Amino acid sequence: MMQLYSYWRSSASYRVRIALALKGLTIEQLPVNLAQGVQSGKAFKGVNPQGFVPALQLDSGQIIGQSLAIIDYLEETYPTPHLLPAAPEHRAYVRQLANLVCSDIHPLNNLRVLNYLKDNLKVTEEQKKAWIAHWIQSGFEAMETLIEHSGLAGECCHGNQPSLADLCLIPQIYNARRFGVSQDAYPTLQRIEKYCLAQPAFMAAHPDSQKDAVAA
Amino acid sequence: MMQLYSYWRSSASYRVRIALALKGLTIEQLPVNLAQGVQSGKAFKGVNPQGFVPALQLDSGQIIGQSLAIIDYLEETYPTPHLLPAAPEHRAYVRQLANLVCSDIHPLNNLRVLNYLKDNLKVTEEQKKAWIAHWIQSGFEAMETLIEHSGLAGECCHGNQPSLADLCLIPQIYNARRFGVSQDAYPTLQRIEKYCLAQPAFMAAHPDSQKDAVAA
Repeated sequence: MMQLYSYWRSSASYRVRIALALKGLTIEQLPVNLAQGVQSGKAFKGVNPQGFVPALQLDSGQIIGQSLAIIDYLEETYPTPHLLPAAPEHRAYVRQLANLVCSDIHPLNNLRVLNYLKDNLKVTEEQKKAWIAHWIQSGFEAMETLIEHSGLAGECCHGNQPSLADLCLIPQIYNARRFGVSQDAYPTLQRIEKYCLAQPAFMAAHPDSQKDAVAA
Repeated sequence: MMQLYSYWRSSASYRVRIALALKGLTIEQLPVNLAQGVQSGKAFKGVNPQGFVPALQLDSGQIIGQSLAIIDYLEETYPTPHLLPAAPEHRAYVRQLANLVCSDIHPLNNLRVLNYLKDNLKVTEEQKKAWIAHWIQSGFEAMETLIEHSGLAGECCHGNQPSLADLCLIPQIYNARRFGVSQDAYPTLQRIEKYCLAQPAFMAAHPDSQKDAVAA
């Protein structure tokens, strides 16, 4: 059985959990406690030299890091239901949205970066909050426009079936809300969030539904 | 004919140029002068709401942003030569390396982030250099280990043919050198760089070979 190293509140882990739930795949979750710094220890660096979750261990022993690489692997080996549309132009639109989140919002606000800002650059709590909000807002503003203008959205970013774009968007909105960043300026994103959060796969994958979740 | 909005020194543009060159595709390049801030103007935001290069305009008028989405689109529509291996596990390895660069190194050191550090957080030149070096070093350290331990590398990250991983690695090494970050600790990355830089497609795609290149 495949094993997933993950953490309940990691939004990159959340993406992968949604993909697994949509495809009906059962795996063993191995919690890595990011709050306690387990990811930076020698043992876990042996699993993933980056010290990041998620990491998917295949039956062969190979370990795949990077949420998008994991989801692409799942998509290729367990194609039903598809997380990418059939037409290359539509796939490109979905991937553009996914990469916008995974390259231009999330990596700027993850734990290691916030720690660097605090420990090395001695930023204030207020400066940290402004930093977080800035990257979320500039990313979501572009995403709202891209989705609206695409003519491809339905209940989800592309049509009425969750795609890779929704798998990245919904955990990022979760993060935004956790950091107290208002979502009022993004009615399209909010509409898609409302729809997705009511779907069983998204509910099963939600941070609060995980065994390693702890009260905030 | 497809058109590529790009900038000579943008490493994300450089990735796409290598893909185009390897596949022997001729497109029109439309330079966007990042040094002059053209990307943030209203006109270009109409092209790409993120205000980023690269952006690929298809004959249909659709514009694809995000270098990885563009390269995946090219891979799907112009499959020869392949930029991803055939086996899903090998594809996952290549994508893991590509995403490591595109999510965990490059976005932390691009122009908008360095400007934010300088303008909003008032960091010193020395602090900025340390920031840049930190993210490159932690990413490259993991990448060196991943490639070494994979048993999949040849002249390139995967075998002897350039793949998506090399398309991301080589421009990131270019950036590292430009920022004065020593590459001595990464013999495997340096070996792959040396091989790739001697290939015609990489030479054609190099920043210094572009029409909009200016002397530093």
